[in-house]
Parts: sequence; C-alpha cells; structure tokens
Amino acid sequence: MLSIFSYNATEYNSKEHSVTEQVPAKVDMEKLVSLCQRRGFIFPSSEIYGGLSSCWDYGPLGVELKRNIKQAWWRAVVQERDDMVGLDASILMHPQTWEASGHLKGFTDPLVECKSCHLRWRALGPIEEEASVVYLRPETAQGMFVNFQNVLNTTRKRLPFGIAQIGKAFRNEITTGNFIFRSREFEQMEIEFFVKPGTDKEWFDYWLEERFNWYVKLGIKKENLKLRQHMKRELAHYAKACYDIDYLFPMGWAELEGIANRGDFDLVQHAKYSGKSLTYLDEENKEHIIPYIIEPSAGVDRSALAFLCDAYDEELAEGELRVILHLHPSLAPIKVAVLPLSRREKLVAVAKQIYADLRQCWMVSYDDAQSIGRRYRRQDEIGTPFCVTIDFQSLEDEQVTIRERDSMRQIRLPIDVLKPTLEAKLKGEPLDILPRGGSYWLGFK
Amino acid sequence: MLSIFSYNATEYNSKEHSVTEQVPAKVDMEKLVSLCQRRGFIFPSSEIYGGLSSCWDYGPLGVELKRNIKQAWWRAVVQERDDMVGLDASILMHPQTWEASGHLKGFTDPLVECKSCHLRWRALGPIEEEASVVYLRPETAQGMFVNFQNVLNTTRKRLPFGIAQIGKAFRNEITTGNFIFRSREFEQMEIEFFVKPGTDKEWFDYWLEERFNWYVKLGIKKENLKLRQHMKRELAHYAKACYDIDYLFPMGWAELEGIANRGDFDLVQHAKYSGKSLTYLDEENKEHIIPYIIEPSAGVDRSALAFLCDAYDEELAEGELRVILHLHPSLAPIKVAVLPLSRREKLVAVAKQIYADLRQCWMVSYDDAQSIGRRYRRQDEIGTPFCVTIDFQSLEDEQVTIRERDSMRQIRLPIDVLKPTLEAKLKGEPLDILPRGGSYWLGFK
Repeated sequence: MLSIFSYNATEYNSKEHSVTEQVPAKVDMEKLVSLCQRRGFIFPSSEIYGGLSSCWDYGPLGVELKRNIKQAWWRAVVQERDDMVGLDASILMHPQTWEASGHLKGFTDPLVECKSCHLRWRALGPIEEEASVVYLRPETAQGMFVNFQNVLNTTRKRLPFGIAQIGKAFRNEITTGNFIFRSREFEQMEIEFFVKPGTDKEWFDYWLEERFNWYVKLGIKKENLKLRQHMKRELAHYAKACYDIDYLFPMGWAELEGIANRGDFDLVQHAKYSGKSLTYLDEENKEHIIPYIIEPSAGVDRSALAFLCDAYDEELAEGELRVILHLHPSLAPIKVAVLPLSRREKLVAVAKQIYADLRQCWMVSYDDAQSIGRRYRRQDEIGTPFCVTIDFQSLEDEQVTIRERDSMRQIRLPIDVLKPTLEAKLKGEPLDILPRGGSYWLGFK
Repeated sequence: MLSIFSYNATEYNSKEHSVTEQVPAKVDMEKLVSLCQRRGFIFPSSEIYGGLSSCWDYGPLGVELKRNIKQAWWRAVVQERDDMVGLDASILMHPQTWEASGHLKGFTDPLVECKSCHLRWRALGPIEEEASVVYLRPETAQGMFVNFQNVLNTTRKRLPFGIAQIGKAFRNEITTGNFIFRSREFEQMEIEFFVKPGTDKEWFDYWLEERFNWYVKLGIKKENLKLRQHMKRELAHYAKACYDIDYLFPMGWAELEGIANRGDFDLVQHAKYSGKSLTYLDEENKEHIIPYIIEPSAGVDRSALAFLCDAYDEELAEGELRVILHLHPSLAPIKVAVLPLSRREKLVAVAKQIYADLRQCWMVSYDDAQSIGRRYRRQDEIGTPFCVTIDFQSLEDEQVTIRERDSMRQIRLPIDVLKPTLEAKLKGEPLDILPRGGSYWLGFK
C-alpha cells in the first residue's frame, strides 16, 4: 500500500511568488478567462462536478498553445544548444530525496482522530512503513540533481553544461486564484546549469539575459517584463541569489520565471544523504570539485497566461469590435484556417484538398459556417496567423487569397506556391508583395 | 490540507494486462536494460538512493525517444485528422469523477492504528473533510469524458469525432518488473472516439486496424504484433468488447495497446452523478442521443519498450560485434551525428559550422573522440540514422561523407546539399545513388 503526500506551499512562499506590485490592468482578466473558456483554451477542471479548486483543463486550443510553448522552450534550450541535454524524471521519487532537499517538513501530515479515545495520530504511524510513503514532487529540479552522475557518465559532457526538464509538480496552495497563475497542479520548465565555482556569477547573468530574451523573441512586449532581485529575506534556503522575471499580469507585476544561483547546496546535500560521490573531475587542475548550479525555472501555465495576456487586443474594425490574439506564429494553436467562400461542391473539393495538404505540415482548421467576415473574426480571436480563402475565381485561375491576421492585408497567389509561402511566413521570413497580375509575395513567382 | 490517494491495481487487473503467452525471447531484456542505462535512455528513478520500485527516469536519449513517440502519435491522431481534437486535463480531478467511473473502491484506503486504544481507523475519518481528498488518476480517460460537452460546445464538432490526450497516470501495481513495461507512474496516449450507437462495431474495427498499422508504419515488425480478443471474464466493467494489440516482448506476448468499446457507460454515469446532460443532438433525426465510445488506449512507456526491443539487433561487422537500434528515423533520439576525422582546427571549424547549421533542424550530436569506426558504432547503438564525416578532402572539395546506419553505405556529397538530402532521407523519401564524380544522391545534383 502506498501513501502519497503533497507539499504545502508556506504562507511565505505563496507571498513571495505573489503579486509584487499592483498597477492598473491593461488586459481584463475576466475577458481573457471568458475567451479561454468560450473558445476551448482552458476549462475549470472537472467542471461538470462544480470544478476542482485551482486545477485547470486545457481544451483543444489550449493544449496546442501549451505544446507550442514547451516545444519552443525545448528547441531553444536543448536542441539548439551544445551544452544542454534533456531529462524526464518520474514525479514520484525516493522519499529520502525530500529529506536531502529540505522539503520534507513541508509535506502534508494528515492527522487522524481516534473516535474511541479522541487522541490524534499521524496517518504516518505504526501501520504504514516508511518505504510505502511517497511524495508528489513540489518541483522538478530534484530529478535533475539526483541524476547528475548518470548524465555525466552517459553523455560525457564537461562543465559548463545543463540538464533541462519539463514536467508536472504539485503544491497545496494557500493563496490561489488569478486563473492559471497559481494552481495546485502545474507544469514546470526547469534548467539546472552546472558550472565551475567562481564562474557562477557570470553564468547567472548569462541566463538572466537569455531567458528574458526568450520571452521577447516570442512576442512579449519588453515594457511588460522586468527583472526583480530577491531581497535577502525572500531567498529560499538553497539560494545564494535570485532574480525573478516579472510580467505585468492583469493583477499586477508577478513572477513569470525565477533564476536562482543555488551554489553547491543540492549536490552537497544529496551526496550527504545518499553516500554517493556527486563530484566532477576538473581535468585542468586534476581535482574533484562540486559544481555550482544556476537554475532558470519557468512555468508552462504561467507562460501560457503571459503569452495570452500580451497577445490580447481589441480594436474597432469596420464598425465592429475585433478581438485579436497577436500570438507569435510559432505559438498560435492553429497556423492556418481554410475557408471556402461557399458550400458548393466544386469549391469544397478544392478547399478540402488544400486543407488535407496543409495539415501534413501544421495544425490547420476548416471553417465553412456563416459569413467570411465572421469566420475571419473567429480566427482572429484564437490567434490564427493566416486564413486561406477559396472563392469561385479560384476554380478558374487556381489562385487563392491569403489574409494576414495582424495587418488584415489580403493577397492572391497561385495554389501551388501556397505551402512554401506559408512556410516562409510562419517562420517570420519577410516576403514583399509584388504586384503582377494576381499579385503575390516575391520569391515565389 | 489535501489527502491524496492512489489507485490499487487489482490482482485481476494486473493479471489481465500481463504476459499472455510465454515464448522464447528474441531480444534479451537484460542486454536492453543495460544498453538503456549505459547510453542514457532510462535510469532507475532516484538511483542514488537505491531506486524507487517500479519508477523510471528517462535520460537524455530516452526523453527524446519518448518525445518522438508522443509527437508521432499526436501527428497521426490529431494533426492529420479532421475528426479529432486534443485535450490536456489535470491529473487531479473532482473526487466524484471516481465515484461515477466505478474506480472509487480501488483507491488506497490507509488504516491508522490508535496507539492508545489500538483501534484502527481510516485516515478518511472525522478530521479530513470529503472535499480535501483527491485521487491520483489511474487513467487519463475520465478527463475526456467530463469535458465532452465543453469540447462539443467550443469546437462544434459533429459525430463521429474524438478527443485525444497524453498524460501521466498512477497505479499501485501488485506485479511489477519487466523494466518499463509496468510501472507505478506511467504515461498514456488515449483516444475517446464518440460515435452514433449502431456504428460502434464499424468504428471499433476501424480503430483496431488504424492503431495496428501505426506501429507497423513506425517500424515494428508485423510478425511481432497480434490481436487478442478479451474473453468475457476479462472485460472491464465498462467494456462491451475489447481487443489488445499484443507485442512479442522479451518476456512473451503482452499488451501494447487496448481498444475497447465502452458503449455509453461513461457518459451515462457522469450524467447521473453530475446531474448534467451529456447528450448529443442528432440533427438528422432531431433527437438527443448518448454517443458510444471507442477507446484506443496506448502507453508511452510500453511503446518505447516495444520500439526499442524491435529495433535492437546485433551483427558481426568486420569481425566485431555491431549493436544497432534500427529505430525509425522519426523516432531516433539523434537524427544526425557530425564527426570530424581529426581535431585539427580547420576541420573542427567546418564540422562545427555544419553541426550548428543542422541543429537548427534536428537533434544532432557531435563526436570527435576515438577512431571513426568506434564513433560509428556508438551512433549505431543509439539508433542515429545518419553520420556525417568531415575529412581533410572536405576542406578542398567542400564535400562530406554521409553514412547510413542500416546499410552502412557511404556516399560523398557537397556540403550545400547536405541539409535537403538529410531532410528527404529522414522523411524516408527514396533517393537513388548517381555515380558521377564524387557520387551523391539523385535529385540534388
């Protein structure tokens, strides 16, 4: 039998990670929550049962957004780097892990009252053996520390190098609310970057900049991000230094990602508790050293919220309110929508062919309901960067219209250059318009 | 405070999903486990603490394999289909979910003995309120059932359509062992496909074939797969019919994926317990119906094990034992290895440039340690489909050698066609060899 305990966020921890400065909201959280629920980004968990407090389900669009965020992170920190490898440690870990990490006393410690003598006892009492107790991890980090030697031995990486991991973690939160900002179950994207002591300050600064720029590259406005240094009393027990990348959420400035200098705390602790050597042979000086660790720790859910908030916009277009998610193309759940102007058989045949063809490359949506204007609005609202419209002229000239979400600019181009054009546009490659017969983008004449 | 309980696999369930027929092993499990650990595919969880029974950590190569399996599944069942959407429901769900599903009595029910009067009490006793009890889901399926109306409302899908989900699930297993075949914590890839009653038999057959072929397309040998119908006494309480796709694992034939016809059991139960209507308006006949559900349920870990077993091969090459993983290119953790023939500066500069360039597209490895033969062997052993060797001649003719893993065939080709050639080869497009000067593949002359 297995008893499972979850970690209680302390009041201090909750506060530490809360709103750091309240400012007038630029995006209305209520509107965003409503959009997310109406369009299938995010639902309350187990909603038909009244929901489960602080748990959320990602719907058809939300799951794609989350997948895209994770993929963009993995690509940037693992695939494109020579000094990083991935890992996927299990959520359940050996209980001693949490003794070593200093988390143990924070876990739920359920008390049971004896109905007979009214004494209170811990459920961790005489019947349960120690080995049958496991804990739901409150952070993914420990999985990387305990695998330090495994990674070192199997990859033959030399310092500096890092381990990157995406995975679920759980905390009993005291202060919840603010949509997916803080939840009992959340997904982390964490890096543990191992460096030679003495170079830690330099690597700390490197990662601070690197991670800040990642958000900017993916479309977050610079003015909505700021760095905030932890004061000494805020520092976690393992941290030598810590900065938060704060984002201007609807409820104010609050932590989006934390970058901590954990020093040698974790490897020292796990070496002590496991009795295993967790040192690194520095071949230059022929000495065993304990690396320092720089930890950029981001949240998938929090990132999703920030990307949604930052992308949200309203404008008046042709006398109507246009709601747009200006999501970066690589994050947009749907890349292209295929819209036949009518449901006439011949038009549908062409549209379905294009749809099937594009779906080989991307998540693509097909919509033939209501007016074309309505359909554009529906796609704008979920952040689809491009719409492809097939009209009756398409049957004659084998050209279609592409409409860009942000500029609402429309151009016609031959069907046979549609895919490479979209490919280039989705990568953000600039393609000028060349007016020439049915005008289309330069480079695919 | 939150009490969390996990699901106890019953003896019957464990048996049901166990080895169904023992046959002489073609692949040695011990060898596979050893390779996985030595090269960084899979480690015992929390290994420095002696491991946590039946939990596993995926190392740098294992995490890529797993990502590729999940990506191939998502692409096949969500991206490329018009009748499927994704979902990512939280692991923690409202407790009533498990009453409705029929799982409740299977969860851990810890007993506590009062040290004073020696009576035994449930930890679910007077102090814990009902609402503070949550369960670790034993399957991802329920998240899709409870979101049926949410998906229907937000996507406007019509029957037949499906919801697909990848996520962790947990069971206290009675019979464990056999590496990652059965673990306490595992990852599922589940589809719930909603159909009109009466069409369920037809859709059941469709999914059986579709899922069988998915494994074959990704390289599993047909003779190592077979369909096995559940006998009546084997059927789960919700199932009208069930087939397993069995794979010939080293320990014998055992379940790789189950395809069940769940009838209307789940929607009826959740409607009953939630008081919400979970019907579908059939516009053709203007009546509200309760869809039937076909469920193809696969395991990520089990798939990983099957792909590894099926890919494992040993052969004598040049008098030496060559261990090869014949992994499908889309599943291989590393797609290309870049190998400079020596560590001379000029060679390294070219090799590093190619390495940086290819890494924009794929997971690429760089190896300059020991002889080229050794390096080929190292890549064969982890299933890298292509090696690119840069030699001194490369500095003069700007050509490099590509070596194919399976055939060990080597050809030279110009550096500037390297990327498109690899792109085509990795997609499995046939490119013949054209002998012409330094010979290279046709199509990129």
